[in-house]
Amino acid sequence: MNDSIAEIDEIIHSKSLAVYGVSRKGGLGNILIQGFIDQEFPKIYIINPTVTEDNLKIMGVSVYPDLKSIGEPIDLVICSTHPKYVKDIVIECGQYGVKAVIIFSAGFGEKSKEGKKAENELLKIAQKYQMRLIGPNCMGFYCPETGLSFFPALPTQSGPLGFISQSGSIANIMAFSSMLKGIHFSKSISYGNGIDLGFNDFLEYLGEDPNTNLIGCYMEGMKDGRRFIKLLKKIRKPIIIWKVGSTLAGAKAAHSHTGSLCGNDKLWNHIFDQYGVIRVYDLEEMISMIQAFINPMPVSNRRVAIISGPGGPAVSSADACEMNNLKLAELSKESQIQLKEVIPEFGSSMSNPIDISLQATFDPILEKRTYEIVGKDPNVDMMLVYLTMLTPRYKDLINLQKEIAKPIVLISALDVNVSADSFSNMVKRSFIHIRAKKVPQIINQMNQNGISVHPNEHLAAKALYNIFQFYNRSYSP
Amino acid sequence: MNDSIAEIDEIIHSKSLAVYGVSRKGGLGNILIQGFIDQEFPKIYIINPTVTEDNLKIMGVSVYPDLKSIGEPIDLVICSTHPKYVKDIVIECGQYGVKAVIIFSAGFGEKSKEGKKAENELLKIAQKYQMRLIGPNCMGFYCPETGLSFFPALPTQSGPLGFISQSGSIANIMAFSSMLKGIHFSKSISYGNGIDLGFNDFLEYLGEDPNTNLIGCYMEGMKDGRRFIKLLKKIRKPIIIWKVGSTLAGAKAAHSHTGSLCGNDKLWNHIFDQYGVIRVYDLEEMISMIQAFINPMPVSNRRVAIISGPGGPAVSSADACEMNNLKLAELSKESQIQLKEVIPEFGSSMSNPIDISLQATFDPILEKRTYEIVGKDPNVDMMLVYLTMLTPRYKDLINLQKEIAKPIVLISALDVNVSADSFSNMVKRSFIHIRAKKVPQIINQMNQNGISVHPNEHLAAKALYNIFQFYNRSYSP
Repeated sequence: MNDSIAEIDEIIHSKSLAVYGVSRKGGLGNILIQGFIDQEFPKIYIINPTVTEDNLKIMGVSVYPDLKSIGEPIDLVICSTHPKYVKDIVIECGQYGVKAVIIFSAGFGEKSKEGKKAENELLKIAQKYQMRLIGPNCMGFYCPETGLSFFPALPTQSGPLGFISQSGSIANIMAFSSMLKGIHFSKSISYGNGIDLGFNDFLEYLGEDPNTNLIGCYMEGMKDGRRFIKLLKKIRKPIIIWKVGSTLAGAKAAHSHTGSLCGNDKLWNHIFDQYGVIRVYDLEEMISMIQAFINPMPVSNRRVAIISGPGGPAVSSADACEMNNLKLAELSKESQIQLKEVIPEFGSSMSNPIDISLQATFDPILEKRTYEIVGKDPNVDMMLVYLTMLTPRYKDLINLQKEIAKPIVLISALDVNVSADSFSNMVKRSFIHIRAKKVPQIINQMNQNGISVHPNEHLAAKALYNIFQFYNRSYSP
Repeated sequence: MNDSIAEIDEIIHSKSLAVYGVSRKGGLGNILIQGFIDQEFPKIYIINPTVTEDNLKIMGVSVYPDLKSIGEPIDLVICSTHPKYVKDIVIECGQYGVKAVIIFSAGFGEKSKEGKKAENELLKIAQKYQMRLIGPNCMGFYCPETGLSFFPALPTQSGPLGFISQSGSIANIMAFSSMLKGIHFSKSISYGNGIDLGFNDFLEYLGEDPNTNLIGCYMEGMKDGRRFIKLLKKIRKPIIIWKVGSTLAGAKAAHSHTGSLCGNDKLWNHIFDQYGVIRVYDLEEMISMIQAFINPMPVSNRRVAIISGPGGPAVSSADACEMNNLKLAELSKESQIQLKEVIPEFGSSMSNPIDISLQATFDPILEKRTYEIVGKDPNVDMMLVYLTMLTPRYKDLINLQKEIAKPIVLISALDVNVSADSFSNMVKRSFIHIRAKKVPQIINQMNQNGISVHPNEHLAAKALYNIFQFYNRSYSP
């Protein structure tokens, strides 16, 4: 374990923290405090030098004029003040023996040359005191295990996903979007301008972290490409990267956002392809690919069976599979004979893509038996199932998966989180439906069993191809 | 008005119908009956020749052994029996003077050569009696105005969207997906194998229909390409087509689904491009583009302003705009000065893409003022707004739109239909949220004002580009 891994782990396991920039009027600092309270972080303090009263509390948290007045060791400081106060705060932290400072404040390298200079000064101060910096222009850490947080109301449950984001807002939106799909975090890290601890440090840390099974990243630029490539070679966990700035307009925007230089996009694609990084282009795709890699089933071939109740989506799914370099499986003779006994003769298709017809609406056994026959076919490596909406029949797939252990993707034409609850009473009557509140837990259970749920057939097919690629990377050590 | 237009209109305005294939046990025919009951269709009858009792009712609908026994003229017959009975039913309909038969039954041209032959026979019978056929292998019509339907629990409200689908299941899923986004139909038409009335007849009809403002289509193949191109030249309404079978695998699947020959995909793209057809590749994209074309604002330039609360999505949205052939607007000096007075100095960006910073979470005026300044800038032709979720501030945009009349697209990172309701109580407290049940009505109101809501920045940017293209088509007559 190298130094920065141990240091990051120590920071994430801080037992006491102090926040600068919290006021009686409310504001961003107060949001941070609420986040720590919601996660039940052990010891929280507020530092506000303008405060003169004794025993003042804001949001139930004790306020002190400076660190010294606390009279106890402080592991971590979060600085959410105007940027002009940051330097003095960092010096105070160094003198008091704080281990790390998260600089939430913006207005540094991303703004101007002076800001860049100020960053260099901060770094020198930190190095002098052997203290680590996160940020500036970031939100820090969210770690349900240790109680760190960057926003109120984040889930207190831990999970297998480690997330690294240059953008604080993306880290935040990711947490909420993930919650709705039952995805939970080991750690989520927003590092902003990353003047000290940066992307590669956190990637290396999550690569070694025993609680992290897969890594998601939002990235604008990269400071040390060589180290990044070394890490990609070393880390065997799935890595999903949302790299922005691939166009001139985007690159310019990234520069003013976190001062990043985005680099040549073709080169990025080359690196990602070579080292099996899964590149995504928006949040929706990120959530899709994360689901697929919570517990991906090993696979050595790419022959997909498509099962669809509706016939139209079966055709479109066949297109999506071919567009994503997958092959349509040719069902075995045995399977074809068995399917003939199950699927109605008309308004259906017994060859792949399999259209189980509208009859499936009335006959749950039809769907279940089709899953079994197709899933157990030795010519089928993966399954793509197109549904109108999620129904309690998902259990059939989970049970089957325990026997076949093949990658399975579902498309739910209607967003799973709205299934049924937003419909009229008539629809609630006509469908066997799942209440929206239960959906995150159900998706979580499916993901644990190698089944992921996608908003369209293109993301579903891409997920299958990525799983195939992941298990058949040519550069395996 | 040509013959088929008048005939289709007459069929859609049928006042009496009879359904073959309804039984006491339940099944597909019964589903159809429930659909007509839900839409309060004027006169519904069931024909079941095995029935011997007098005055029998199924689902409250009178059952007769044949058409003659009804003793009243029947405009429309829906045939949902085994395919072997269809021929005799069509003959009976012809003899009784029925205007049209919807053949729901499958098992014809899409199945075999014999099926193809049977189709030819049916067509000859229909022609003999000057009767029109819809299908086979289809679901017919859904028209809230006249009470026609193909599934239970469809909305009874009419709207501006005309939809044509080769696939019945897609027509059905479209109806439910649309409902959740507040999109309503003038007519939705599922024509299946289309042996008599087919795609071009319905396209021409919707092109002339005064209640249809835009046309969505799901298409597998095309029988008369020349007529199709003539219609594309003639119809000035937006046409959005989900054409499948673009790959070999998809084309094969389409052939077994509705017996279609998909044709050369490059040629299709060429035709679509030339005549301003908006091509989409899945249901999610279809819904996005329909929203954008409910009431698109005219625009003659493609300079987009991006406004985002979160900074990360602003960068990704800039990429999405450039990838979709849009230009980032350069804000006027005046706007830049005004924005400086509104947007916080740090953690923000005042040049396009505009990052209004996390501060907007506490300060609704900030968001509203930014919309106004940017929306009124003469250098800005269109607006792309990235939100975490839909909040009551959508009203600010609607009010602004009344003054500026420019295309506006929103991205809601969290599906609008789940906004808030599926979250913990803590999140409900922390956000100004909209209840999911109100969402369809709100989206409808936005769409009416030229504002559409999208699941990701790529679809949002694509919607803007399509609107620009629609108003700047080079082949305008």
